[in-house]
Amino acid sequence: MSKLPNTGTTIFTVMSALATAHKAINLSQGFPDFDCSDELKALVNDAMQQGHNQYAPMPGIMPLREAISEKIGKLYGQHVDPDTEITITPGGTYAIFTAIATCIQPGDEVIIFEPAYDSYIPNVLVNGGTPVLIPLSFPDYHINWALVRSKITSHTKMIMLNTPHNPTGTILRAADLQELEKLVAEFNLLVLSDEVYEHLIYDGETHQSILRYPALFRNSFVTFSFGKVFHNTGWKMGYCVAPAHLTQEYRKVHQYLCFSVNTPMQYGLAAFLKKPEHYLSLPAFYQEKRDYFLKLMAQTRFTPLKGQGSYFQLMQYERISQEGDKEFATRMTQEFGVAGIPISAFYQNGKDDHVIRFCFAKKKATLEQAVERLIKM
Amino acid sequence: MSKLPNTGTTIFTVMSALATAHKAINLSQGFPDFDCSDELKALVNDAMQQGHNQYAPMPGIMPLREAISEKIGKLYGQHVDPDTEITITPGGTYAIFTAIATCIQPGDEVIIFEPAYDSYIPNVLVNGGTPVLIPLSFPDYHINWALVRSKITSHTKMIMLNTPHNPTGTILRAADLQELEKLVAEFNLLVLSDEVYEHLIYDGETHQSILRYPALFRNSFVTFSFGKVFHNTGWKMGYCVAPAHLTQEYRKVHQYLCFSVNTPMQYGLAAFLKKPEHYLSLPAFYQEKRDYFLKLMAQTRFTPLKGQGSYFQLMQYERISQEGDKEFATRMTQEFGVAGIPISAFYQNGKDDHVIRFCFAKKKATLEQAVERLIKM
Ligand SMILES: CSCCC(=O)C(=O)O
Ligand SMILES: CSCCC(=O)C(=O)O
Repeated sequence: MSKLPNTGTTIFTVMSALATAHKAINLSQGFPDFDCSDELKALVNDAMQQGHNQYAPMPGIMPLREAISEKIGKLYGQHVDPDTEITITPGGTYAIFTAIATCIQPGDEVIIFEPAYDSYIPNVLVNGGTPVLIPLSFPDYHINWALVRSKITSHTKMIMLNTPHNPTGTILRAADLQELEKLVAEFNLLVLSDEVYEHLIYDGETHQSILRYPALFRNSFVTFSFGKVFHNTGWKMGYCVAPAHLTQEYRKVHQYLCFSVNTPMQYGLAAFLKKPEHYLSLPAFYQEKRDYFLKLMAQTRFTPLKGQGSYFQLMQYERISQEGDKEFATRMTQEFGVAGIPISAFYQNGKDDHVIRFCFAKKKATLEQAVERLIKM
Repeated sequence: MSKLPNTGTTIFTVMSALATAHKAINLSQGFPDFDCSDELKALVNDAMQQGHNQYAPMPGIMPLREAISEKIGKLYGQHVDPDTEITITPGGTYAIFTAIATCIQPGDEVIIFEPAYDSYIPNVLVNGGTPVLIPLSFPDYHINWALVRSKITSHTKMIMLNTPHNPTGTILRAADLQELEKLVAEFNLLVLSDEVYEHLIYDGETHQSILRYPALFRNSFVTFSFGKVFHNTGWKMGYCVAPAHLTQEYRKVHQYLCFSVNTPMQYGLAAFLKKPEHYLSLPAFYQEKRDYFLKLMAQTRFTPLKGQGSYFQLMQYERISQEGDKEFATRMTQEFGVAGIPISAFYQNGKDDHVIRFCFAKKKATLEQAVERLIKM
């Protein structure tokens, strides 16, 4: 009776559990090992003390939706209507699932690029859709738009994007969005753009949010996460931005899926988001970590692949023997005490480029300790 | 392209908004107008301060699952395994949706009793299933088991229960569970039992949880809510209890739907639940409110229907003119300043027994003020 007969435990749970079992430094699952802001915690506590403990309105509290709208105006130069175009969700993963549940029915095809965040394919399957997998190029992980065009059929309903990209850390360029815009217009496709790492962009690059492109936005769901950017992945707070006609359908599913989202956390985040420095400081904060990690890793057997965003860094190693990347990652955890994610876990066919994903959202001391161990490998 | 073409805004949102617009006393949507425990808020704040702000394990933190297992042992005399049979969810509504998403595919029939909590039918539809609606008797809202048997086909996959029942406040009896057990065994049905009001039971009655019946439990998902019983509906915390073979499939959907649930709130609830008085005191606490509300309402034109659970009380009124219950409830809100839910909202066909659902999870002063107004009606 299983709807997901081939689904096991997510790689993130598997590797974090292995890390714990072997007291390894955990650079696998994407979460910081430092705490979120004291100011933000105090704001949530204030909200609880003030008695904000009953149901929030179904789409989220208005002050939070307004703060999000202001942020979008400031960063992407577009107006989104807090009343009809923003919905607060219990995390980014939920925001993505709900967009798929809103639109995808048996027979619908959804284009997904690989390597892919591991919820995308099961999300499509649970809703009866058919994932159409398209590989990103290796080792630069670009989208081949001619290949995308060749995969579009009369059943293609949606195309899923992720920028900055997990697991590769690459970002989409303006040229990509222009290609996308052509396809969306020509074939009337929906777009689901996972932008949970929006503020984690390096080297002076620009986040090419769908929200910058009004024509594209009209066909799009764009999903975000507070946990990923404000260092509290455990709060499970996120949101979906979509034009009113799509948000209307989205909320029909959302209102019967979980109805509303944690009230005191919404009040805390609304107050926190009012101060733009809280997100404007993020690129520099994480660039420093990224650069430091790269510098340290230069002493190891690993070679970095180029990325400009997210809090992940891909590292290739020279393969000795026929060892697969899963075995390599397991050995690295068990024998050398550092956990990472083997990139084959992000491919349905297990494509193995001997690449490990490391999460560098860690204290400097953690990164130093990890690299000291990896030098020995 | 809508999957839910006939879905509008939930009646709860509509009536709460109307109450706000007319500064009416809101006895419509089910939430308390008093705050949750200071001790519980402090426990959540402690967890935040201690740095419990990153991802919880996918099924929930073990201390919370253990505390739930202990509670179940104490109340229902059964052992459920915290490791393999309990999953923490962002609220009871999500817990229900996820059980349906786990099991229901196009072609599957799901038996739902009416009046029904308003998420059940859309949840089945979004997953491609077919709701089979069976009316409860009026005015005692019993299940006619012979009628249920006559509705079972080779496509019947699941039967949904809710005890204590929203909106009627009735509860299932041991005899009901015995009838259910026969049908489940004979037709190999799944059961989804919504028990979010488990502790809100009056008049010395016993909550007939599925968890008391090991043979039934083997085929069941049983869903619970912390918000409904600990007076913090806005925290959106709940859980699903199911035997290991069903929990395994449930978690496959859950891990890709929202992955995990608010960490500091889990720690706070785990510590709070450790003290059984926190839930053992609930029946008396709410019975006092229920009895007080009934006493006050005796002065009005309303006649109570009999219920023994939940925090809702149905009240019938004598219909004058051809006014429907929705118009009655609107007039009550706008002209008399008290909001309630017209029971026709819980029927697909809008069956109107001139009954209003009132939520009595309110301060004494609120109930007094509301009744003062209703006396004038
Ligand atoms: C939801 S658990 C996985 C966290 C994450 O985004 C990642 O490690 O890729
Ligand atoms: C999820 S909003 C509705 C609250 C409730 O359970 C009810 O009023 O019946």
